[in-house]
Amino acid sequence: MESQLRGAQASEMAALLSVLRWDGSVSRQEMIRQTGLSRAVVAQRVSQLMSKGLLDDGEAGRSTGGRPPRHIRFRASAGYLLVADIGATSIDVAVTDLASNLLAHHAEAADIALGPELILGRLEKLFEMVCGEAGHIPGRLWGIGIGVPGPVEFATGRPVSPPIMPGWDGYPIRQRFSDHYRVPVWVDNDANLMALGEGRFGVARGHDNVVFIKIGTGIGAGLISDGLPHRGSHGSAGDVGHIQVAEDRNVVCRCGNVGCLEALAGGAALAREAERRARNGSSQWLAEVLERTGTLTAEDVAEAARRGDTTSVELLQMSGRLIGRMLATLVNFFNPSLIVVGGGVAGAGDVLLAAIREVVYGRSLPLATRDLLIKRSSLSSVAGVTGASAMVLDELFSAQRLEAWIDVGHPAELSGAGFRAEARES
Amino acid sequence: MESQLRGAQASEMAALLSVLRWDGSVSRQEMIRQTGLSRAVVAQRVSQLMSKGLLDDGEAGRSTGGRPPRHIRFRASAGYLLVADIGATSIDVAVTDLASNLLAHHAEAADIALGPELILGRLEKLFEMVCGEAGHIPGRLWGIGIGVPGPVEFATGRPVSPPIMPGWDGYPIRQRFSDHYRVPVWVDNDANLMALGEGRFGVARGHDNVVFIKIGTGIGAGLISDGLPHRGSHGSAGDVGHIQVAEDRNVVCRCGNVGCLEALAGGAALAREAERRARNGSSQWLAEVLERTGTLTAEDVAEAARRGDTTSVELLQMSGRLIGRMLATLVNFFNPSLIVVGGGVAGAGDVLLAAIREVVYGRSLPLATRDLLIKRSSLSSVAGVTGASAMVLDELFSAQRLEAWIDVGHPAELSGAGFRAEARES
Repeated sequence: MESQLRGAQASEMAALLSVLRWDGSVSRQEMIRQTGLSRAVVAQRVSQLMSKGLLDDGEAGRSTGGRPPRHIRFRASAGYLLVADIGATSIDVAVTDLASNLLAHHAEAADIALGPELILGRLEKLFEMVCGEAGHIPGRLWGIGIGVPGPVEFATGRPVSPPIMPGWDGYPIRQRFSDHYRVPVWVDNDANLMALGEGRFGVARGHDNVVFIKIGTGIGAGLISDGLPHRGSHGSAGDVGHIQVAEDRNVVCRCGNVGCLEALAGGAALAREAERRARNGSSQWLAEVLERTGTLTAEDVAEAARRGDTTSVELLQMSGRLIGRMLATLVNFFNPSLIVVGGGVAGAGDVLLAAIREVVYGRSLPLATRDLLIKRSSLSSVAGVTGASAMVLDELFSAQRLEAWIDVGHPAELSGAGFRAEARES
Repeated sequence: MESQLRGAQASEMAALLSVLRWDGSVSRQEMIRQTGLSRAVVAQRVSQLMSKGLLDDGEAGRSTGGRPPRHIRFRASAGYLLVADIGATSIDVAVTDLASNLLAHHAEAADIALGPELILGRLEKLFEMVCGEAGHIPGRLWGIGIGVPGPVEFATGRPVSPPIMPGWDGYPIRQRFSDHYRVPVWVDNDANLMALGEGRFGVARGHDNVVFIKIGTGIGAGLISDGLPHRGSHGSAGDVGHIQVAEDRNVVCRCGNVGCLEALAGGAALAREAERRARNGSSQWLAEVLERTGTLTAEDVAEAARRGDTTSVELLQMSGRLIGRMLATLVNFFNPSLIVVGGGVAGAGDVLLAAIREVVYGRSLPLATRDLLIKRSSLSSVAGVTGASAMVLDELFSAQRLEAWIDVGHPAELSGAGFRAEARES
């Protein structure tokens, strides 16, 4: 026998863990059935994983006569993750266990345009804070996952020409956090993480081909292709906010172009249009809110629509129809079984979702919409941090990564040579 | 030791074969380096694969002093495949070896609208014919791959509501051929296969995220996501010909809708518009061809454009710009590193490609086009059959399939129980 763990053994462990991570407590018999591994191999790998603290004995299963079979359980508390979802105007941070349960969570307003030093400095403070809340973290931190509102080169963890993140282009986010915390770090686009979060733990579980559309201040999408994130060749896949949907509109987008979907249908566009209509007298309701608070937000428009303000209903419909037209094209192209509508504005009411549905079902090919579902995000405001945790776990428990750390029993090893090699390759 | 081959052993063999299938002749040292397997495991698996006739001794490598290392070679002649690319107006058939080399090839005109019985009956005749040409096939047929011009449910090998294939909806193509030939059969959309062919053996080799756009009588696309085909939830991904690109045009598409890209920019649209312009006197050249031959085709338009007929140049530019607009949106969404332009009309000249490039580079996001290449298909008329062969080989040599047949040494076993189980699942 060789002293180094073989690739094949790591693959077998990864196969067992992928059953146990999702199904909780499982009998050996069931593991054999689901993985196709032999009884002897299952017994050996389970025993190895127990010795590393990743599995323990669960409750006994139901007996069909005789002694009930003993179940094996994944120990989600073997390690912890720090995760963050940095949006255009907010930071969400959380501590999760190895099953992506949120043990502590904090959200606050923050302007991404302040740049990486200020925002990431604040993020480190918030990580300290939630670690304190969750307790038990020192020495058991296994990884960090971070989402940002722009394209990311996944292999190196650096933003690539992000249109709304001045000062962040090429900033080594992974490097900074892996140097500081000495654990493996992954960074991805926020909408990709929301798609992954919904896919692993939310409304998209069981769907292999998914489009997650995030409607917040801006508009972005995250894609799942055959169960895995589709990030594209520069990490900019899903960058639908800057698709040109109108030729002759004079609204300049924050990316510098005109006619972008985001500039016409995003949260900022809704707020701007609402203010215009409040001032020109088309909506009494909006005018009153504007006078009272001095400003109007997309949330105000949604609230007004719920109260029956026809101008606000019309604004949300207009936005939903523009988004729907873009989605109708993407549905023909990508053929998802589910579109998840999320982000701050999406949570605001049914008018927007109804308008999106109307246009997508009306304009896409019948075959592509035959079984297509269009649903609201179920994880809503925690989709991003949940997805960040899912991303780190997918990476840590892949056969390839597992082989690199399971002998030591702690993935901190990965933060060193392995990552630097990857960064050089790309 | 258990008599049944273990999953882990099949994974190791699959890893070795994936190195050998692409790199030809390889030393054991190189296999160890590329797969990460130990020397002992490589030696065992190579010996097993040799005993099954899949590997043999290749030429000796270059020596760096001492005895030159002996190389191992994949035996592409261990088995043969029958492949077909059924288009809207043509059938291409070929015999390939296990490296997708075409040993015999035949193409003829055929109208898909004649329905499955006539078309597939003819296909069986053509299979017999090319088998005769290639020789050595009886007993060594390992699989069949077939492409059709419409969406296919990949798991069962049945067309799903194909817009231009009357009578084919739900037809059990796989079943028919696997019952007849007793070998495993896979069926996919033609554009998907062209994308795969270019990805494995053509201009898209080395690109992980690819859009193949097929411009023939109709228009379709095939997608590669992270090196693998993206087929979507109903196999209708890439169905871009019926994306609505114009609201107010009165051209009815053969799918029944109006304003479809295909109805405005495909080969049939080019031919129709050319005929109109020939008749109304805008092009002397086209009028003369029409008078001489009684009809006009997209190829006539391309030929006229090459000869300097400005009306034909204008028609190709119009078509290219419409296709380019659709692609610009898809580039933002999918972020490919390469767009391959193929199909009968694409081969016709540079005007179309130039117009597509102009619009895509002008309208997509700078980040998405920073390193984006737009190239003509390199396999051109054999992209479909090459891709059909690549599809069958990808399936046969996956770890999961290999495990099911390598003990017997011939994949004919797969055509029975395994496939029927899959068909039930979906």
